[in-house]
Amino acid sequence: MRKRIFNNFKTLLSSASNNIFHVNKLHSYPNFTKNVYQVNRGPYKSLEEHHLTFFRDVLGENGMIVDLCDLEKYNVDFTKQLRGCSTLVLRPTTTQQISKILSFCNHNHLAVCTQGGNTGICGGATPVFDEVILSTELMNKVIHLDELSGVLTCEAGCVLQQLNDFLVERDLMMPIDLGAKGSCQIGGNLSTNAGGIRLYRYGNLHGNVLGLEVVKADGEVLDCMNTLKKDNTGYHLQHLFIGSEGTLGIITKVAIQCAPKPKSVHLLFLGAQNFTKVLKAYKKARYDLGEIISAVECMDHQTMELVEEHSELSSPIGPYPFYLIIETSGSESVHDQKKLEGYFNGCMDKHFILNGVVATSAAQREKLWSIREGIAHSMYQDGYVFSYDISLPFSSYYDFVTEMREYMGKKAHRVFGFGHLGDGNIHLQISIKEFSNEILNYIEPHIYNRVDELHGSISAEHGIGFLKRKYLPKIKSSENLSTMRKLKMLMDPKGILNPYKVL
Amino acid sequence: MRKRIFNNFKTLLSSASNNIFHVNKLHSYPNFTKNVYQVNRGPYKSLEEHHLTFFRDVLGENGMIVDLCDLEKYNVDFTKQLRGCSTLVLRPTTTQQISKILSFCNHNHLAVCTQGGNTGICGGATPVFDEVILSTELMNKVIHLDELSGVLTCEAGCVLQQLNDFLVERDLMMPIDLGAKGSCQIGGNLSTNAGGIRLYRYGNLHGNVLGLEVVKADGEVLDCMNTLKKDNTGYHLQHLFIGSEGTLGIITKVAIQCAPKPKSVHLLFLGAQNFTKVLKAYKKARYDLGEIISAVECMDHQTMELVEEHSELSSPIGPYPFYLIIETSGSESVHDQKKLEGYFNGCMDKHFILNGVVATSAAQREKLWSIREGIAHSMYQDGYVFSYDISLPFSSYYDFVTEMREYMGKKAHRVFGFGHLGDGNIHLQISIKEFSNEILNYIEPHIYNRVDELHGSISAEHGIGFLKRKYLPKIKSSENLSTMRKLKMLMDPKGILNPYKVL
Repeated sequence: MRKRIFNNFKTLLSSASNNIFHVNKLHSYPNFTKNVYQVNRGPYKSLEEHHLTFFRDVLGENGMIVDLCDLEKYNVDFTKQLRGCSTLVLRPTTTQQISKILSFCNHNHLAVCTQGGNTGICGGATPVFDEVILSTELMNKVIHLDELSGVLTCEAGCVLQQLNDFLVERDLMMPIDLGAKGSCQIGGNLSTNAGGIRLYRYGNLHGNVLGLEVVKADGEVLDCMNTLKKDNTGYHLQHLFIGSEGTLGIITKVAIQCAPKPKSVHLLFLGAQNFTKVLKAYKKARYDLGEIISAVECMDHQTMELVEEHSELSSPIGPYPFYLIIETSGSESVHDQKKLEGYFNGCMDKHFILNGVVATSAAQREKLWSIREGIAHSMYQDGYVFSYDISLPFSSYYDFVTEMREYMGKKAHRVFGFGHLGDGNIHLQISIKEFSNEILNYIEPHIYNRVDELHGSISAEHGIGFLKRKYLPKIKSSENLSTMRKLKMLMDPKGILNPYKVL
Repeated sequence: MRKRIFNNFKTLLSSASNNIFHVNKLHSYPNFTKNVYQVNRGPYKSLEEHHLTFFRDVLGENGMIVDLCDLEKYNVDFTKQLRGCSTLVLRPTTTQQISKILSFCNHNHLAVCTQGGNTGICGGATPVFDEVILSTELMNKVIHLDELSGVLTCEAGCVLQQLNDFLVERDLMMPIDLGAKGSCQIGGNLSTNAGGIRLYRYGNLHGNVLGLEVVKADGEVLDCMNTLKKDNTGYHLQHLFIGSEGTLGIITKVAIQCAPKPKSVHLLFLGAQNFTKVLKAYKKARYDLGEIISAVECMDHQTMELVEEHSELSSPIGPYPFYLIIETSGSESVHDQKKLEGYFNGCMDKHFILNGVVATSAAQREKLWSIREGIAHSMYQDGYVFSYDISLPFSSYYDFVTEMREYMGKKAHRVFGFGHLGDGNIHLQISIKEFSNEILNYIEPHIYNRVDELHGSISAEHGIGFLKRKYLPKIKSSENLSTMRKLKMLMDPKGILNPYKVL
């Protein structure tokens, strides 16, 4: 019977629809951030005609956007919660142009908001007031690839998906994979130290980034463009800019260690009775599947119900309280399948799981991944969603979702959790019919206090951005914050880079 | 025939001796660094009786070493090239004691040299003048291990081997392995961003370290003790202290991501005709062995001859121009052996390699590794050795050894190279009968200029320390150096931490 379940995945899988999601957000353009959040504008100069003349001289007419309609997509964030009122987007194509722009802005005290793909969910990439938006979208050239070492050098505005496509043709792949890969840029990924599903296997960006080129607030170009795997010459300055969300400098180039493209990829989709069993199955996978695991994801049945409600996708194994998704990447498909079968049978024998399917072909894997990746799209069809990207120790990883469900009671339409189990990273979602300040105040800061009490992180793989900055002083020691502020003062004494963010 | 070679490794291997190396360095204690290198002492206060009284109050009599004989091992570096003249070693047991000591030293303008296992080869851990030596050797407690996530929290003075032994009993292991593991401390490993043989698979310390506790020069304790795999709350301050060689703060605690202990480990020892074939065999390994590779090392025949001359060890496959060592770590021995056999046969078919053995048992592996690990010990029996830890692009990785051999001509007794091929890291060695300033000046700065021209790194997995600091300004841009100096000024305005090092 068990064998039947394991081997019949193709039949089961074919019942899953191949429907493509259409994003159809309920929300129209939001109110201006400055009004909603009652922020005070910093002491920056406003744009004047002679500033525009300077920028035009540096970039030409095509390197600027001033039309208010065209500006809108740069002023509004990905989640459609935030809206700045910038009147100028600059689109440089070279480091030297950025250097000139920053030197000028620093001298003239003009605030700058650097923007990559504008896919962040914490408001780190959109202006709050009338900051000049510096978009890296035209800095999108691959500079060099060393196919043997796997080191890729490229400009900051390269789109993640395009880099991956370029690499895959050369039997390599990016060490990072994100839901927003079709739009997000590598510079933005670095600025937020983005996580994603490949982090489990390939590590974080601090580990994979070998070198950066950065322009400082005063226009000085900092060349930390190492392309070697090992380089211990002096302070490792590049790490200052990874995760500092564009507040310490603008990343213009990157050298990143890429991974060999695996020859064999499989995806296990498992159903479990409760979260304790999910953890047991995960622990067993660490030892049975060891080196071939490339992602470990989980979701609760509430999440699956949401996806089933708002799409034509459905669980390929029927309804279970919890789902565990394990991706493996190896160099020999026969071996990987053998390991997966042994693992699956072991988990069934020990009742860690109740059912499961495995996808071997790219099309099958894509269908299964579409369930996981479809969550974000389904979420926004469920009304208004308060979305929290948190890390927690395994001891409280899912208990916290249950706790929040009880805390919300009838106030919420749905409280659900899914995430990167292998990284201790869960995305807790609370959906309600429509946005309400009362509910927001009921959830926050309660949720952040609890995460802190549980020794978790209130920002796991995204950033602090604009939305969480008021909570930073509550979770960081005064010594820690003071050191951050001194670093900011050192790198950007006039505070022109991405103001109102992080600190 | 090929099969025979592959399968008969046990017979071949048994001819390798299990002789343990005895370190028997030719050099007696070196002259004082300050005299040899003509350094000027910084404007620091000298120790006075009232300083000692303070330290005694904080640490008690047992927490201090003042006996000149006992001090010697702290004053002289591992390579016996450098010698400070400190008269005091402090051995704190808590972060609070370090905080009090630094606050006092900062106030009284006393220079401090932090020392872990004192196994560095660039002089970063030994005093130059009479700096107070702050040894972390008594801060050696494991604080916590989360067996499921693999996150280990411990004090900075824990010895790497002891941490690994502790983990291995719990089916985990450290993500870093170094020749000096029996003496080096994790705090020192972090301060120098040490590399080693596991970096190829498990990544560097920037990727593996999740959190640090650091005491700043003024005694302030900086708590960056995150234990979560993903945490993007504010600037990632811990990275400032990784690789800054104790000049920005003293690391007191660390949280590090450990790896599951592999169930199956194999070691391939291969002989090749030339370096081009070594590279071809390496490239093939990346794709054939992919996820199970855990180390890729190489050495030339000159290195093997050195080992054979100075020990009872010998090549298990007879003499070849080059040797390639590949370690694999997996979760299923049968699969790994199958992959290795396919890889070996493929390499033989394509004439990438000429011969090879594989070790499967721990004892066999240890014997093969003892050849690689024995190089360091043999080196010092070969006269005086100028040792260079460099990274180079593959295009010039071994050509540079050949070039340096030609450059040295009859001036050198032996010019040889071995190293972490998979990381682009080679240890170039030039041995002469005895130390000569003339030869030193002939080699340096020539060698560093050439490495820079070839886009390599003059310090790959060790540090800049004391010995290479004069070369830093030649390879780093003025903007880069100026930013480093500003960081130093920010973190340690009086310059009391590890003076005469790095900058």
